Amino acid sequence: MSTFVFLDLEATGLPSAEPEIAELSLFAVHRSSLENPERNELGIPVLPRVLDKLTLCMSPTRPFTAKASEITGLSSEGLARSRKAGFDGAVVRTLQAFLSRQEGPICLVAHNGFDYDFPLLCHGTPSAWDTLPALRGLDRAHSHGTRAQGRKGYSLGSLFRRYFGAEPSAAHSAEGDVHTLLMVFLHRAAELLSWADEQARSWLHIQPMYTPPDSLCGAC
Amino acid sequence: MSTFVFLDLEATGLPSAEPEIAELSLFAVHRSSLENPERNELGIPVLPRVLDKLTLCMSPTRPFTAKASEITGLSSEGLARSRKAGFDGAVVRTLQAFLSRQEGPICLVAHNGFDYDFPLLCHGTPSAWDTLPALRGLDRAHSHGTRAQGRKGYSLGSLFRRYFGAEPSAAHSAEGDVHTLLMVFLHRAAELLSWADEQARSWLHIQPMYTPPDSLCGAC
Repeated sequence: MSTFVFLDLEATGLPSAEPEIAELSLFAVHRSSLENPERNELGIPVLPRVLDKLTLCMSPTRPFTAKASEITGLSSEGLARSRKAGFDGAVVRTLQAFLSRQEGPICLVAHNGFDYDFPLLCHGTPSAWDTLPALRGLDRAHSHGTRAQGRKGYSLGSLFRRYFGAEPSAAHSAEGDVHTLLMVFLHRAAELLSWADEQARSWLHIQPMYTPPDSLCGAC
Repeated sequence: MSTFVFLDLEATGLPSAEPEIAELSLFAVHRSSLENPERNELGIPVLPRVLDKLTLCMSPTRPFTAKASEITGLSSEGLARSRKAGFDGAVVRTLQAFLSRQEGPICLVAHNGFDYDFPLLCHGTPSAWDTLPALRGLDRAHSHGTRAQGRKGYSLGSLFRRYFGAEPSAAHSAEGDVHTLLMVFLHRAAELLSWADEQARSWLHIQPMYTPPDSLCGAC
């Protein structure tokens, strides 16, 4: 893997509600920046200086659940006021052009990505990789599966608080969550890079979350 | 104007050095978010929730001046380590696809844009608009040209410090400077929107900063 593209999606609800994407954010980081993360004077990793970013908002066709609207701060009305189109060809073209700037092979990285972001996105062809089972797996390997490890929280917020002793910022905006994800990754970059080289799945093995009525996902 | 795309470029040096772009950042904001900016509990404007962002780094063919490398934190070596291509067709395609997501007419907004960012970018067809002469002009109109106004600093940092009583963050990263620019705009959004509607220049009136040897700017 040469480039890791950290990804987060905000959507209209949980998988059971057959959600639609309302916001996506990607941070593309070259492997070289992960192998030797820059650190501040306290030894804490800082974001790489060379970083490509893309954040797009889009109007879903179905309504937000009340909970999704509350935690993301997004609503159909707000998106319509900004005249955002849906997940259309221009989104796909922007993603393709953005990814084509990154040295391949590319690996998409999302937290809980196998169960949420990747099946929901289901576009494109890079490898994909989920930090939730990876971090659980790494902790299990270190602790030989003791109960103490099993009780730890593995939400993105729990991991950030555990690693940095601070609250993550801008939670549940796609860009804020990608920032948190990249910081969590940087905290354990060496282990996670090895894991990714062995465990990343081909995009072709990702199953769409559901079959939308007018399938934009037909090519998956 | 329906969408304002706030823009900042980092480059290899000042205009006299015939600089090349090394980083660009764009925040696209719909007019409706500028007419009624969201504010925090202290009444200070906050970034609109619905915001599309794009930040791309690229390897210039000529070297950075020592000063440019120092203030931007970018270097030819760092960009090469991340295997960044130059300002190529994929950058143009990404910009085009990103801009095509925004409701038109689109107005690019940069601080000192007429003298730096727009002549350097010289691609595309939207309107363009410079907040440096706009803010100077607005202050002159209010003060009838008294000397006190003339002595104020109009750098982006000076404006941010004057309006918010705080240091701008991530100065001289393209994304950090766009964030500062958008906050400065939000502080005087109503006046600036009226100004933009009257004063934005057609892109066709922007002259390239210089003629590069192998002209990517041939279409300007």
